[in-house]
Amino acid sequence: MSSDDQGPLLTAEDLREAENRIRPYAHRTPVLTSSYLDERSGAELLFKCENFQRIGAFKFRGATNAVFSLAPEELERGVVAHSSGNHAQALALAARLRGTRATIVMPTTASAVKVAAVRGYGAEVVSCQPTVEDREQETERVLRETGGTLIHPYNDRRIIAGQATAAMELLEQVEGLDLVLAPVGGGGLLSGTTLAAHHFSPSTRVIGVEPAAADDAYRSLEVGEIQPSIDPKTIADGLLTSLGDLTFAVISELTDRIVTVSEEAIVEAMRTVWERMKIIIEPSAAVPVAAILAGQLDPAGQRVGIILSGGNVDLDRLPWSTRPSQSSV
Amino acid sequence: MSSDDQGPLLTAEDLREAENRIRPYAHRTPVLTSSYLDERSGAELLFKCENFQRIGAFKFRGATNAVFSLAPEELERGVVAHSSGNHAQALALAARLRGTRATIVMPTTASAVKVAAVRGYGAEVVSCQPTVEDREQETERVLRETGGTLIHPYNDRRIIAGQATAAMELLEQVEGLDLVLAPVGGGGLLSGTTLAAHHFSPSTRVIGVEPAAADDAYRSLEVGEIQPSIDPKTIADGLLTSLGDLTFAVISELTDRIVTVSEEAIVEAMRTVWERMKIIIEPSAAVPVAAILAGQLDPAGQRVGIILSGGNVDLDRLPWSTRPSQSSV
Repeated sequence: MSSDDQGPLLTAEDLREAENRIRPYAHRTPVLTSSYLDERSGAELLFKCENFQRIGAFKFRGATNAVFSLAPEELERGVVAHSSGNHAQALALAARLRGTRATIVMPTTASAVKVAAVRGYGAEVVSCQPTVEDREQETERVLRETGGTLIHPYNDRRIIAGQATAAMELLEQVEGLDLVLAPVGGGGLLSGTTLAAHHFSPSTRVIGVEPAAADDAYRSLEVGEIQPSIDPKTIADGLLTSLGDLTFAVISELTDRIVTVSEEAIVEAMRTVWERMKIIIEPSAAVPVAAILAGQLDPAGQRVGIILSGGNVDLDRLPWSTRPSQSSV
Repeated sequence: MSSDDQGPLLTAEDLREAENRIRPYAHRTPVLTSSYLDERSGAELLFKCENFQRIGAFKFRGATNAVFSLAPEELERGVVAHSSGNHAQALALAARLRGTRATIVMPTTASAVKVAAVRGYGAEVVSCQPTVEDREQETERVLRETGGTLIHPYNDRRIIAGQATAAMELLEQVEGLDLVLAPVGGGGLLSGTTLAAHHFSPSTRVIGVEPAAADDAYRSLEVGEIQPSIDPKTIADGLLTSLGDLTFAVISELTDRIVTVSEEAIVEAMRTVWERMKIIIEPSAAVPVAAILAGQLDPAGQRVGIILSGGNVDLDRLPWSTRPSQSSV
């Protein structure tokens, strides 16, 4: 399946195939609620806990669907990606489960913890300078030398179909959702979420939420073409990238809209979820929660699903511990 | 129901009554698993998430059972406790839900966050000096002035029956448990857990785990009478107290045994649960996990329930952030 020979809109069948393909490997993550957050928002909030997914993020779904879609001759040559984030670990684990090799190009600035995690799943890590040029050069070189298949982190139909399975599960676990919120970076999760609602619960609206400091998706929908994300500075480090042509096409056609939130709202939402729900979410996962808590969205009276995208946080560097004199609230 | 006119061993009926009494108010908390921790321990570990309970700890169960057991004339005069921990919040919320007043005697050293939380539930907070004498004097004065009912945090049949409901749920949610682990401080949770297994799953053993730095329960069982906990210094601040006569009687008769764990093992277990399970547990809740990870118990091949007792942690003061130069593992 390539991105050229089909329209951008994946079918219900594409999504069901992905769900069946990854079922033996992915966790069916629980849906949690919070009476405090319900009271505060006036809504009924249903949190889909992809922070409990394998490798700690929804990315495992798409990577697994992609790797398990490969033909035998592709599997012989392995998979390749460049990523310093959750996609790297997701692809490494998916490759191990499928018995193929993964080579991940990671910038020298990637944290030692993340490099170790990727290696821990058995992948080979190739270092590159933290520039677009060097990253692409190294990736090209690895692809040439291995003959492997590049697995893009979001602009890939197999990845989008895999990410859709989180919302598919949520729609099975909870009936009558009025709205689902998902964060948007490259748009793989938001595209999948939107397609899941479109095919399996057409009355459920989907809204994407992104940091105001990395509002390229918002601007792209305003302008009607992909706007680059130029040197964004946000704590939500999973949401730095721009949309791709596939994710842009899906989101601009089917997503209700994109709202943006401030950095302060993201940190406050993250801390509130930690304190009140006793679960660990990463800043990117706090972005949709921030839209509600900071009033960018008013979901009062509605049944709202929120995809908590991941929980991979460096526990030695929490966003609130950078201000050590601050007292807790 | 007083502690004098019955033997220490609560009946199955006592426990079922407690379960029915608190059902409309308490969360039926989920049971989570971790493939990482299963692999590491060689066991099948089932985590009962009382960190997701209302007020963030199992204590809500006992307090609610106690408050909702009171007679109308007792409810008119309210409830009283001295506590700087989870029992304070639990009793405050239970009293609010029952429409009665709570007065909590808290030491001046209690954190402002905790005092605010107790007041937030509508309870009156009376300050005392952080000495046993002043605390008891103030509590006596409040009892005299209000005519209220003292609700002891653990040495009370109603409290023990309420705490038992966590294990009762766990035994319903998971079949065939070989073993259940619970932390032990005053022994309310361990007594309740042991009684639940005794009545509803007699083949399930129960083991209590306590910090080596506060090993009064371990010593009490060795000696055969209650040993005081003298100035214990442990990060597990929910486990500082000694057993009471009721909890000692239940535990010494029915609990398999007590094992102890080091402070280092507690911090490592807490961090491991945060990192791998993406849930927030307090140090006291990490104590049973520490027994497995540090090898004080070898549960290989067994199905083991672990009561994660609570998740109330000051996010500005994490045990690992006291060593800021330490790199993450």
